[in-house]
Amino acid sequence: MMKIAVDAMGGDNAPQAIIEGVEQARDQFDDIEFQLYGNPAKVKPLIKNNDRLTVIETTEEIAMGEEPVRAIRKKKDSSIVRAAKAVKDGEADAFFSAGNTGAVLAAGIFVVGRIKGIDRPGLTSILPITKPGSDRKSFVYLDSGANAESKERNLVQYGYLGKFYAENVLKVENPRVALLNNGAEEDKGDKLHKAVWQDLNNEKDLNFVGNIESGDLLFGKADVVVSDGWTANAALKATEGTAKMMLTLIRHGIMNGGLRAKLGYLFLKSVFHQIGKKMNTSTYGGAVLLGLKAPVVKTHGASDAAAVKNTISQIRTMLTSGVIDKTVEFFSQESLVDKKEENE
Amino acid sequence: MMKIAVDAMGGDNAPQAIIEGVEQARDQFDDIEFQLYGNPAKVKPLIKNNDRLTVIETTEEIAMGEEPVRAIRKKKDSSIVRAAKAVKDGEADAFFSAGNTGAVLAAGIFVVGRIKGIDRPGLTSILPITKPGSDRKSFVYLDSGANAESKERNLVQYGYLGKFYAENVLKVENPRVALLNNGAEEDKGDKLHKAVWQDLNNEKDLNFVGNIESGDLLFGKADVVVSDGWTANAALKATEGTAKMMLTLIRHGIMNGGLRAKLGYLFLKSVFHQIGKKMNTSTYGGAVLLGLKAPVVKTHGASDAAAVKNTISQIRTMLTSGVIDKTVEFFSQESLVDKKEENE
Repeated sequence: MMKIAVDAMGGDNAPQAIIEGVEQARDQFDDIEFQLYGNPAKVKPLIKNNDRLTVIETTEEIAMGEEPVRAIRKKKDSSIVRAAKAVKDGEADAFFSAGNTGAVLAAGIFVVGRIKGIDRPGLTSILPITKPGSDRKSFVYLDSGANAESKERNLVQYGYLGKFYAENVLKVENPRVALLNNGAEEDKGDKLHKAVWQDLNNEKDLNFVGNIESGDLLFGKADVVVSDGWTANAALKATEGTAKMMLTLIRHGIMNGGLRAKLGYLFLKSVFHQIGKKMNTSTYGGAVLLGLKAPVVKTHGASDAAAVKNTISQIRTMLTSGVIDKTVEFFSQESLVDKKEENE
Repeated sequence: MMKIAVDAMGGDNAPQAIIEGVEQARDQFDDIEFQLYGNPAKVKPLIKNNDRLTVIETTEEIAMGEEPVRAIRKKKDSSIVRAAKAVKDGEADAFFSAGNTGAVLAAGIFVVGRIKGIDRPGLTSILPITKPGSDRKSFVYLDSGANAESKERNLVQYGYLGKFYAENVLKVENPRVALLNNGAEEDKGDKLHKAVWQDLNNEKDLNFVGNIESGDLLFGKADVVVSDGWTANAALKATEGTAKMMLTLIRHGIMNGGLRAKLGYLFLKSVFHQIGKKMNTSTYGGAVLLGLKAPVVKTHGASDAAAVKNTISQIRTMLTSGVIDKTVEFFSQESLVDKKEENE
């Protein structure tokens, strides 16, 4: 029986959407128990069925806008810190939250703890491959924003963290690893990216396929895209913002195009619906802080019950696949640790 | 009479599209003379009317993939170097090309030359504001990729270069200047961006409105978006790539949606056409290397005659507005130069 510690209070629709999603996941999977950390007065009335579901009282909440590191230090009895602590203490196998991203990351790093050999865990988004006809539906993207400043060795580690995730959770054989850069050719980039290109190319255990530009992210050229957190964050937000803008423009065009356009919309409704679903990153699960001793997964603050359920399913695959044990084993190889230290 | 030096050989559709676009511009504006640098055997047969149009023979061409700095050093008789040289020597007022971007930038910096006080010219794209209902149609975005590594003072200078362009060429009063960053709040960003935020906020002559995230670029929150070249390039390519992907998905959905979807397309054709036009960055003109002593403007390699004509019109507005003289005057103020040097 797997145990998942859930922050019941985090997210725009909490605790309602969290409880609903957890109950849906509980009903779908008979091998998970849930610990719901939160205010019982708010949480308990929303629960339909207490099967494999325990409410654990916490007295504090970390709000969306709070300064993360300060918040997790001060609010020891918050749902975020308590759920992370349960994982650290072995009372739970994984930590799920839709709350303050920075606080979840900080609790992951300072409470759950890093895998030995990993310097900076990377926030990992699972993004859609939307190219028509592609047989693969998603790819692994890290660091999508946990670190504003990254070093050479962090990016090489992301290559491996992403590879293990793609292999074990997405079930991709020999995943293609690419480096996000400002051009496709080998000699592109600033100093950092030129050096990382060489490093990744030298790693015999990685199927490195070279650079990828941010304009090609959704085109399925790689299964793992490695990047410093700064650049990946800028490219991801631009991608999401543009998709949103395109849908806004279409909606606006339809609303203002008279009867003709409205008829057109009726005929194309299912096409638009499919595109909206494809581009909706929450379809593919939450963001995982890879490099920690246990799954710490953050879903979008605006997540509804379905997104919560999807993310629980993703955590379950992480647990059953043993991805973290395999990662721990790899990074504990003496030869690799030595090499990494030499490079410092 | 303004004189524009044109690289007739650069671009995927050169010299055909270049000549056509130049002739369209010549027919529209009676105050421009053109010097067409290129191979007369290829250029002359395409010219319909020689009015205000001189062909100047060059014997070399710089190809799209050539290493830029090396190319402009070796190929002194290339159309790019000769056209840039004409500007340096006062034989022309501006330089236009659709060729190798790096070579155009290098020729701009090393042949045309920087304005005194400017360390690094910034490649400036004019991008669409696509938010429905916005009264402004475009904004100024720099450095969109001339420099992979930027310093604090470069970004402050971009604030002014962008402001003068927006005021004089786009005719925006008191343009709002924003900093591209990884969050909207004042304390966001890495060291560089935190420092630039403070600098821009301290500049009394700038209407600084704070940070903007890459997901909000097209939403019209600023008239000038300042960024290091690395981040701006990543965000711009992601924006263009996503817009392209969305249009691909719509087209694919229509092609595979049967009669129903094809009917829907017929009804929505004009909506799609408008969106495609709005998102097509070449509608708004070419990319300007701001910070040089004369307009050096690079339009997209795939430009057609209409894009060439639009870009000539943009150069004409740069010349008639006196934007460069105003920029030169500003950066020649002793107080500012002193201050900039102190900061180094």
